This record gives sequence, structure tokens and C-alpha cells, in this order.
Amino acid sequence: MELTLAELASFCTAQGIPCEVEGDRAVPISSVATLEDAGPADVGFLSNPKYENHLATTRAAAVFVRPDVKSPRPMNLIRTPEPYAAVTAAIVRLHGYRRHPQWGISDRAMIAASAVIGANANIAPNVYIDDDVRIGANATIYPGVHIARNCRIGDNLTLFPNVVIYENCALGDRVTIHAGTVIGEDGLGYAPVGEKWVKIPQIGNAVLGDDVEIGANCTIDRATPGSTTIGSGSKFSNLIAIGHGTRIDEDCMFVAQVGVAGSVHVGRHVTMAGQAGVVGHITIGDNVTVGAKAGVTNSIEPGVTVLGQPAVPISECRRQMAVTQRLPDMKDEIRRLRRDLDKLRKQIDGGRD
Amino acid sequence: MELTLAELASFCTAQGIPCEVEGDRAVPISSVATLEDAGPADVGFLSNPKYENHLATTRAAAVFVRPDVKSPRPMNLIRTPEPYAAVTAAIVRLHGYRRHPQWGISDRAMIAASAVIGANANIAPNVYIDDDVRIGANATIYPGVHIARNCRIGDNLTLFPNVVIYENCALGDRVTIHAGTVIGEDGLGYAPVGEKWVKIPQIGNAVLGDDVEIGANCTIDRATPGSTTIGSGSKFSNLIAIGHGTRIDEDCMFVAQVGVAGSVHVGRHVTMAGQAGVVGHITIGDNVTVGAKAGVTNSIEPGVTVLGQPAVPISECRRQMAVTQRLPDMKDEIRRLRRDLDKLRKQIDGGRD
Amino acid sequence: MELTLAELASFCTAQGIPCEVEGDRAVPISSVATLEDAGPADVGFLSNPKYENHLATTRAAAVFVRPDVKSPRPMNLIRTPEPYAAVTAAIVRLHGYRRHPQWGISDRAMIAASAVIGANANIAPNVYIDDDVRIGANATIYPGVHIARNCRIGDNLTLFPNVVIYENCALGDRVTIHAGTVIGEDGLGYAPVGEKWVKIPQIGNAVLGDDVEIGANCTIDRATPGSTTIGSGSKFSNLIAIGHGTRIDEDCMFVAQVGVAGSVHVGRHVTMAGQAGVVGHITIGDNVTVGAKAGVTNSIEPGVTVLGQPAVPISECRRQMAVTQRLPDMKDEIRRLRRDLDKLRKQIDGGRD
Repeated sequence: MELTLAELASFCTAQGIPCEVEGDRAVPISSVATLEDAGPADVGFLSNPKYENHLATTRAAAVFVRPDVKSPRPMNLIRTPEPYAAVTAAIVRLHGYRRHPQWGISDRAMIAASAVIGANANIAPNVYIDDDVRIGANATIYPGVHIARNCRIGDNLTLFPNVVIYENCALGDRVTIHAGTVIGEDGLGYAPVGEKWVKIPQIGNAVLGDDVEIGANCTIDRATPGSTTIGSGSKFSNLIAIGHGTRIDEDCMFVAQVGVAGSVHVGRHVTMAGQAGVVGHITIGDNVTVGAKAGVTNSIEPGVTVLGQPAVPISECRRQMAVTQRLPDMKDEIRRLRRDLDKLRKQIDGGRD
Repeated sequence: MELTLAELASFCTAQGIPCEVEGDRAVPISSVATLEDAGPADVGFLSNPKYENHLATTRAAAVFVRPDVKSPRPMNLIRTPEPYAAVTAAIVRLHGYRRHPQWGISDRAMIAASAVIGANANIAPNVYIDDDVRIGANATIYPGVHIARNCRIGDNLTLFPNVVIYENCALGDRVTIHAGTVIGEDGLGYAPVGEKWVKIPQIGNAVLGDDVEIGANCTIDRATPGSTTIGSGSKFSNLIAIGHGTRIDEDCMFVAQVGVAGSVHVGRHVTMAGQAGVVGHITIGDNVTVGAKAGVTNSIEPGVTVLGQPAVPISECRRQMAVTQRLPDMKDEIRRLRRDLDKLRKQIDGGRD
Repeated sequence: MELTLAELASFCTAQGIPCEVEGDRAVPISSVATLEDAGPADVGFLSNPKYENHLATTRAAAVFVRPDVKSPRPMNLIRTPEPYAAVTAAIVRLHGYRRHPQWGISDRAMIAASAVIGANANIAPNVYIDDDVRIGANATIYPGVHIARNCRIGDNLTLFPNVVIYENCALGDRVTIHAGTVIGEDGLGYAPVGEKWVKIPQIGNAVLGDDVEIGANCTIDRATPGSTTIGSGSKFSNLIAIGHGTRIDEDCMFVAQVGVAGSVHVGRHVTMAGQAGVVGHITIGDNVTVGAKAGVTNSIEPGVTVLGQPAVPISECRRQMAVTQRLPDMKDEIRRLRRDLDKLRKQIDGGRD
């Protein structure tokens, strides 16, 4: 696949992302690359102003930039208010989506007679699908995947190798789960009897909405009774742990190694940065942003950005940090105050004598 | 399975959990659910006072509550001093334990001729069991599990899909390990030679006691020489990392994403909350509680609760936080002291003139 | 395998690790063990001075110690300036390296016709190797491993069970990856369109250099375009997450649960302790040390050791902690200053009257 720069800009514009070419409209583009890696047939992109200096040195044939970016030298540019969206369109146009191997329904897959699989299934060898599972159309399931009994799954599913889904779970349409992730394992539910722990059977399930994508080696607990829920459109990175009975609403974005304890309600369009943690039994409002490594110990109002351990609104966190940085100054000033006070007292006492 | 409320209360009482019915003793109960999800044939439970307001709105047929809880409206209650234990008994009575698929010993399992498997085994296709492994009676092993040579395993084992156990490890009776967990991988042992790292072969093993349950996608290192040990009755959630040569005693409870470095000794009945971390070569006493995200850098005496990074006893942590919150006030008072002192000096100097 | 103490010392010395025997040169040694676990045919080792008291009680036949260690009682010692290197040599001599099962190329492995596998391969049943994969000589690949199309892999590979490598990735020579680790899954790349997230196809790959060893259940993202890179000689523990487009240079050592976001450049010989985290788009210099649980939010100069959240150089961190510990004193002194100032003012005002 190869396009001229002008053709690529027209394509993006037609997708609703207005693009204008500056420079050689006829230069051929065959691929997308970072500014650092790009060669003379690649289009690069600048979305983070931090990397503006790479414009001076990139070998890219052209670069997607915002309208206000100043180029340090004459070069081919595609100016657009949305470089990320434009580069996404360009990647899809030039590279297409991932091509999965085509297995049909492998005769080395182990599929229970009572399972119902929709049209056009692509199921690898060594997939295990247990009794009464129902899967919609166009499923792609890689080797080593295990789907336990009575799961309900929509259309256009993609499960990468070694994903495990425990019994009775439900997944919506267009769900993608990366390798090694486990859905619906038992939550940490035990009744204390003296110093021993007696297991509380975890009879609930886990439910993922439509368009959910989950990274590699995550763990989503099933609920004790009821459901652990991941809302439609939510996207998770890797090594994320979600506790039993927690409900996460639509369009959330969780970065790697986030942990959310049980019985939490996370609102819509919440962003959690890497290694953030949330204690159990609290509520996080819509559109909240939780900073990297933040430790959330109390409910958060909608729209607030929190940081720190324990997490506090970002303004408070910055004020605390500012005061903390002034601590050595404060210590010095206290010492000076004592000295000046003593001097003054001496002066007075001296004046008295 | 369906019982009247009175029958359910009698059953729990007979198990040693005293229960008294308030309201309609004849209402039929078929299931357990959260107060939020419960329908008219479900029994709910209130163990966290935080949710007391759910009593007003639940559709549950009846609710397990502590003796002192005040109901906001007339409703069916089972009063008991131990609602968690009672609901556990109710779940087991109404739902039973998980029903595993029944494979017998699948002829698609790969079991070494020298392995010895006890009576009544339930071993799935695509399980791999290597030379000289010994497993007790009543094992249930899901697909994709790998047990390397010479492991020693007790009775009533449950391994969920894709669990991996490296060679020479030992597991007690009634051990349950959830999907994707790895037991006995090499610890991070390298000798520095210049700036290179030379591997120290990890010739020890990992040993799990009786009644240990481990969540999904955990990693328990083997020891360099000797054993990494998880004591009987200990329960782990998901994504937990235990370093080589660490010894964890009986009845511990670790929440998700806890990390314990190597050569640590953790005493009996220790609780670690989510994302807590422990540095190597220290000792944590019996009955210690480590708060969420705490970073333990020094040994801890028995019975102490620690919080923070670095972790300190909870009273000290709260005092530090209280002083920190007063920092802006301190800053203001220092400024006022300076102003008052200057005024006073002026006054004195003025008086002198 | 059994050697006398003198033979073991000679062997280590011949490997370039000078060793001198003190005590009975003829005592037979058959194994290596910790001081705590050692029996009368074991050699132990003392590398951490913290454990010097174990010398008094160990049952070991002999112990590797540094030249300056004072023994609390007469015992057999091997004195060496490098006890870690010596014990490594001793372990290899007495125990050898791990013996893998020998499968040849199992006829239950699923290997695409277009894949090219080097000489002397040892490939287990239920391994899946897709189209156009190339693997060098002497590969050992355990069951449940998945290598997607077009991966390029060097000689002497070891992949433990259930490792997954996505398409187009590259691994150098002598790479070892422990069970359940995923290489090259999609990074968390989405373009925001209103409140929805539109996936950016991740068309890059992940590249591991020579002699890389990666622990269990890690996740190494593929790049969006370009490569995520792990430099030769780097060693990772378990449950580590590396973001898309990040470049890690040679001979790094990462402890368990470390997380590095995307587009980070980590220099050579960097050590990250457990649960450390690094935000995206920054640079960490050569020979940096990042403390346990540190949260790195800014670039770090070469050679610096950082601690804390946000991470600061260790000297600054200690100064902050010292001042913080003095906070209660500061508060008291401020109160005394106020009291003394008031007294003084009263005195003056009194003197005036």
C-alpha cells in the first residue's frame, strides 16, 4: 500500500479529520513511524510538544503536526488539529488491522457439544470451550484459551492466547482481551473464624460491556454474589487487578498495574494512571483523573483530579508539596527568630540594668 | 434448592452460628445476593455498616444483620453476631461449591509414566505432568496446567487453567491455585561481574502448606538454595510476587498486587493490604497488619499496624499527617512572629531614641 | 557429584575467583545451601553481613565468607573477596544447570510449514509456532508457548510454559523467558474522539537483545510504530510492565512489579527496585538506581540514586525526611517563640506604664 501525501491528507479529511498539506504533495508514503525511526517513505507525527526538536532531525517524508507548530526547517507537513486521530486513520489506511491466523474451527479445539458458536468462527487448536457457552458471530480465539461453562459472549470477540474466562461470565460485542488475562477468578472472600479463614464461595460473575479492550495478564475477580462490571468502551492496559463486586462505568482508561479493590463504583470516563490504587467500598465520580501511583482512600467528586498517597485534589497536593519544599527555610527562620528574640531580650534586660 | 427463612436460620444455627429470625419465617429463599442486586427470592446481608442505607431500598426477601442493627422499615431479618460466617453457610447450603467439569484422566493429558497420581483424579486434556511427580487423591487439574518433574503434591488439589509449577516444588493438602499463577520460577539471582550479571542457578524450590489458596497470575519464586515457603491456611489474591527464600507463616491474608522481596520472614496471621511492598532480609512479626500501598523497609514487631512509605506504626503515621496538615498554619505563624518581633524591636528602638 | 572442600576451592580459584580454605580441606561437599538450611554435607555462604550471627549456629560443612569476616567459633571456611561469584561457581559445579525435559520436536507441537527452526531443537507438545517464524539453534520451548508469525529469534532460546510472543517481534541469542510472560501485546494506544477511545493499531514490535532474562507473568508492549527495546544483558524479575516505544539499554536489573510507561529511555546498567514506577516520555541516565516504590516523574542524570514519590536524589530525600521528623519539634518551638515574645512585649509594655 502506497499513497501520495496529498492522497493521505484527502483520506484523513474524508474521515472527518481536516488535514492540509504543506510542501511536496506528491511524495510517496508507505508507512507510519516515530520521528526518530522514520525513513524517507514514512510519515511521522508530532503530538507531544516535548519532541518538537525531533522535527529538525527526522528523516520522515512528512510529519503530522498541529496547525500552530513552527517547523525549524523546510519540510513536508500535514497540519491538522487532531494529529493523533489523523495518524490513527493513516495507520489503518496504510497498514490495516492485525491479520489473525485463519483456523476455521480447528478439529483440535475442544468444544462442548452444548456450546453454541456463531457464524464465521476462527477457533485455534487447544482452545477449550465448556458446556452451555454461547458465542456470537466472527469470534477469533487463539490457542490455550479456556472458556468455562455457561459464559455468554457477543459478536466480534478476540481472545489472545491463554486467556481464561471462568464460568457464568458475560462479554458484550467487540471485546478484545490480550494474552494471559483471567476473567472471573474467585475474589478474596473469606470469613474469619478465630485466626482461620473460611472460604465464602464466590457465586457471582464478571460482566464486560461492548467494545471493552483489556491488556495482558490482568485479573478481574468474579463477585461474591452479583456481578463485577466493566462498562462499555473501557480500555485497560496490563497487569491490572479489579476486586469482586466492583462496578466500572463506560469509557474508562486504566494504565498498567492499576489496582481497584472490591465493592468500588468507578464512574464514566475515569482515567487512572499507572500503579494507582483504590481502596474498597468507595465511589469515584465521572470524569475523575487519578494520578500515577496515587492511593485513593476516600470517595471523589466528579471531574476532580487527584494525586498522592493518600490522594488529594491536585491543587491541595501541589500546595502541600510547595510547603514541604519550604520546610528547610522554615526551620532556618525559626532559628533566626529565636536568636533575634534572645538578642532583643538581652537588649531590654541590658537597658534595664 | 429452596428453603424457608426459618429453615435457613436453623441450618446456620446448627453450624454454630446463632441466628434469629425477625418477620415472616415462611418466606422461601433460593439464593444469596447483594442488597443492591437482591430480588424477592434472595437473602441479602449487611456486614459493612456503610451500607445500612441499602436496607431501606433492597428488594431482598430477608437480610442477615448484626443484632444491634436498626431496620429503617418493617422487613424480614436474620439477626446473628457473625453475618459473614452466616452468609457463607447460606451460600454453601443454597449454591454448593463450584462444580468442576469431569474429565476422569483425559487421554489428551500428557502424564509421564513415572508420575504417580492418586485415586479419583480429574485431569483435563492438555495438562502436562512430568517425570516423578506425585499427586494425592481427588486432584482436579484444568487444561494448560504444567507440573514439572519431581513435584510432591497432597490430596484434594485444585489447579485452574494454565497454572505452572516448576520442578521439585511441594504442595500440601487442599491447595487451590487460580488461573495463570506460576510457582517456583527462578528468583532474581545474579552475581555482578563488572557491569554484567552472571546467573546464579536457582536450585531451591517453593513449598506451599495445607489449605493454601492463591489467586490468579501470581508469581512465587523458588529459593536459590533452600525453600520459599507459604504457610498452611494462607490466602493470596491476584498478581502477588513473593521473592526467593522468603518464608510466610500460617494464616496470612495478602490482597492483590502485594510484593514481598527475598529472604523475608513474615509471621503468622499477617494481613497485607493491596499494593503493599516489603524489602528483602527483614522480619515481620505475627499478627502484623500492613496498610494499602505501605512500603515496609524495616522489621516490624508482632501485632503492630503500619502505614505509609516508609511504613511506620499507624499512630506515628497519623501524627505525621496531622502535623503535615498544619504546615500552612505553621508557615503563617512564623511570618506573624517575624512581624511582631520586628514591631517590638522598632518600639524598643523608638523608645530609646 | 561430590568434592572435597579443597577441590571446590581450587575449582573456584581456577574460574578466576581466588579462594582460600581455612580448616579441614578434606571435608566432602555435595551441595550448596543457606546457612539456616545447610546440613553436614553442604557448603553455605555469607554475603550479607546482617546474617553473620548465623555462622554461630549453622550446621554447614563449610562457609564461603569475605576475607575480613571473623568467625565466632572454629569452623571450615573458604575465604574469597567475591562470595556471590564463588557460590555461583560452586552451584554450577555441584548441581549443574536445570535439566530440561527432552522432546526433540514433538509431533504434538503445531509448527507452521513456513517456520524455520535451527538445529537441536527441543520443542514440547502444544507449542504453537506460526508462519514465517525463524528460530536459531538449541531452542528449548515448553508446552503452551505461542510464537506468532514472523518473529525472529536467535540461538539458545529458553521459553518456559505459556509464554506468548506476538507477531513480528525479535529476540537475540541466549534469551530466557519464564512462564506466563507476554511479549509484544498491544500498547495502550487510543485516540480520544469525544469521550470515546478509538484504537490506534499498534504496528510496531518488541525487540529483546542477547542474554536477556525475563521473569514470570511480565508484559512488554509492542510499539505503536517502531520498537520497544530491552537491551542485551538486562534481567527482569516478575510482574513487570514495560510501555510501548520504551527503550531500555544494556545490563539493567529490574526487581518485581516495576512499571515503566511508554516512550521512556532507560540507560545502561540501571537498577530499579521493587514496585518502582516511571512516567512516560522521560530519560533515565546510565547507572541510575531507582529505590523501591519510587515514582519517577522527571528525567534523571546518569549515576544518580533516587527515592520517594515523586522521586528525588537520595540526599535530598533524606534531608526531607530528616526535616519532616523534626516537624513536631518545630511546632513546639514556634509555640515557645510566641509565648516568649508575648512575655517580652508584656515586660516592655509593663516597663512603659
